[in-house]
Amino acid sequence: MIYLDNSATTPVHPEVLTMLTDVIEQCYGNPSSLHHMGVKAERLVEQARKVVAEALDAAPQEILFTSGGTEANNMAIRGIVEQYQGRGKHIITTMVEHPSVFEVFAYLEEQGFRVTYLPVDEVGRIRLHDVEKAMTNETILVSVMHVNNEVGTVQPIEEIGAILAQYPKALFHVDAVQSYGKIPLSVRKAKIDALSLSAHKLHGPKGVGALYLRKQVVIKPLFIGGGQENGMRSGTHNVPGIAGLAKATILAKIEQTRRMNQFQSWKEQFIEAIMDKLDHVVVNGDQTQVGGAPYIINLSFPGMKSEVLVHALENEHVLVSSKSACSSKNEKASRVLSAMGLSDEAATSSIRVSMGYQTEQQDIMDCVEALERVVPNLQQVMKVRKK
Amino acid sequence: MIYLDNSATTPVHPEVLTMLTDVIEQCYGNPSSLHHMGVKAERLVEQARKVVAEALDAAPQEILFTSGGTEANNMAIRGIVEQYQGRGKHIITTMVEHPSVFEVFAYLEEQGFRVTYLPVDEVGRIRLHDVEKAMTNETILVSVMHVNNEVGTVQPIEEIGAILAQYPKALFHVDAVQSYGKIPLSVRKAKIDALSLSAHKLHGPKGVGALYLRKQVVIKPLFIGGGQENGMRSGTHNVPGIAGLAKATILAKIEQTRRMNQFQSWKEQFIEAIMDKLDHVVVNGDQTQVGGAPYIINLSFPGMKSEVLVHALENEHVLVSSKSACSSKNEKASRVLSAMGLSDEAATSSIRVSMGYQTEQQDIMDCVEALERVVPNLQQVMKVRKK
Ligand SMILES: Cc1ncc(COP(=O)(O)O)c(C=O)c1O
Ligand SMILES: Cc1ncc(COP(=O)(O)O)c(C=O)c1O
Repeated sequence: MIYLDNSATTPVHPEVLTMLTDVIEQCYGNPSSLHHMGVKAERLVEQARKVVAEALDAAPQEILFTSGGTEANNMAIRGIVEQYQGRGKHIITTMVEHPSVFEVFAYLEEQGFRVTYLPVDEVGRIRLHDVEKAMTNETILVSVMHVNNEVGTVQPIEEIGAILAQYPKALFHVDAVQSYGKIPLSVRKAKIDALSLSAHKLHGPKGVGALYLRKQVVIKPLFIGGGQENGMRSGTHNVPGIAGLAKATILAKIEQTRRMNQFQSWKEQFIEAIMDKLDHVVVNGDQTQVGGAPYIINLSFPGMKSEVLVHALENEHVLVSSKSACSSKNEKASRVLSAMGLSDEAATSSIRVSMGYQTEQQDIMDCVEALERVVPNLQQVMKVRKK
Repeated sequence: MIYLDNSATTPVHPEVLTMLTDVIEQCYGNPSSLHHMGVKAERLVEQARKVVAEALDAAPQEILFTSGGTEANNMAIRGIVEQYQGRGKHIITTMVEHPSVFEVFAYLEEQGFRVTYLPVDEVGRIRLHDVEKAMTNETILVSVMHVNNEVGTVQPIEEIGAILAQYPKALFHVDAVQSYGKIPLSVRKAKIDALSLSAHKLHGPKGVGALYLRKQVVIKPLFIGGGQENGMRSGTHNVPGIAGLAKATILAKIEQTRRMNQFQSWKEQFIEAIMDKLDHVVVNGDQTQVGGAPYIINLSFPGMKSEVLVHALENEHVLVSSKSACSSKNEKASRVLSAMGLSDEAATSSIRVSMGYQTEQQDIMDCVEALERVVPNLQQVMKVRKK
């Protein structure tokens, strides 16, 4: 079986698993306890905080551990808005965000906030002049993802940060769930106020993530209680999970550049082979290494249904996804692809092939071959049906 | 080393750990994915839901998985209040709740809700006629914990449920984090609308818990996003954690009665020995098996400081806690003990001894002996200081 659905979630790296079991067995204390089992656990959490901070070019006290990317996004956006709504009621995001950003903005719109949803170009990238045009004196928050989860397009985060620096009222949140540990991003250089990440997209454990929150930024917490994480995120620390996130971060940084170059070359080989061997295929997103995450490939096969393709590939032992995992069970057109201007036909016929550390070149070539076996047959069936 | 701080957190049961590693290795899919790795993961989640539902006498679709007890408490209380505030602005809780309930009520009070904090008697129990007195036509929520985390006192949940049944506007939330899997509670019989639990208090993994929410109850979700858990709790499922919670539940149910009886007899032996051998000790809470959780013992040594005792016992290789883990780093008097009418002296000199599945009778006797070595010395020091 070839697992090419790493943007949905990744297998845990064996060294992360070893870390998890070690911590579970030997360091089961509650970091809030006074005795040495507590102190040991607290130390692990603080070590992990340093690792994550370093990966983002942040200070350790700017890292808050969460249960994942969804919590981090909700916490950042709702927390900022609740805290700073006195300064203005205008907030900005993009048409291509993950639901854990997009739906929070939709909720805030219902609550009376004015929301600008920035459009994207045909590769899924927002335009800087649209950001500039959207900014007002009432804007308190701009949330833009780093790497898009469906098509891999990289947004110009540093450039947006530079624009926002001229609007001291507006905070900048970045959903970096799909890029953390893969594509470097400095929160200092990009002038980011809040950034979300999640371990399970990086061969870390499920159920843990983090929110970077710039020192000077105060927000209302989402979880109130025991006062952990400086009162910003109550709840007993998930110590093994947090240690696992740190371990995954360290492992990801090793050979990060080499691995990204490798993914890019496999991606190019994949696309070349597909374009060569199949008709009526559209490659979605930006195929340059700077403009698109090398580990995500998105294709449309107009006329087919994503779900049919996913299952046909599964019969060939290749696991890919239709669109984003969480929306894969409804058959509506992908919001992301529609925002990029794709027709309904193209936006309901996409598949996403996404790579992880365990992916090998042969997997990618096998996926090409599986598509070669599967697609012409399905295209034949479609043709017959249309007659 | 003798770990007697199981109310802060518990070591993971070896069989739960095996389950965790099996799931991590073999079932790493995202339950939202269409392919069989997703389906396998989804199946595990649904099996776990059945196990938790059965333990509570609930229906599977009434169980929502969360990142722990703090999230479940915040989600239930804030979600209910946000949803039903149109019906009234009065909410009720007790003076002895965990901060993840108590502080949420304090926050809601700031937001304009009228809050009644029910007092407790000298063992830490609320009085039913206080509940009756507090109820008004504006009351939309009553939140009472099942077992208190500091002194183990069991609240009369079924009786409260019977009272609340006469007030159809008022929903009933129970924080069962310290009792789940240990002391049976039927949400049907007790007419509970929402109930919180957490895996790490039950030899399950950290970072996972659940909220029971009665079918007919609608609440505003705390996490908005991908729409998992029927839209009630977005975020990629923590599949290993959820499977671990189910495993811990199953293990806890095996010999539950026998184990509770055993804890009770050790608790009685402990208290008898302590009272016999040490002067100036006060046992806090209810010592009957029906009235107090058999696995929690709380003692005060007036004149001493909790922290000093914890560290002195640690030198004797016995790990206990001062009060609740999350507040153990501030030296204020325990809010719970103060509410029970203890003097400041008694309320700042308490320790909590709490048992888990791995606890043996010898551990309890060793703890008695450690106290016998430690306490008279410290009492001597205190006397000298006072002179
Ligand atoms: C871009 C993006 N943001 C946020 C999330 C949510 O993260 P999590 O699954 O950890 O809740 C995901 C993945 O599900 C994602 O791809
Ligand atoms: C009674 C009670 N409620 C809630 C919690 C919070 O649960 P968690 O640690 O899973 O966030 C705890 C323990 O910390 C507790 O003892």
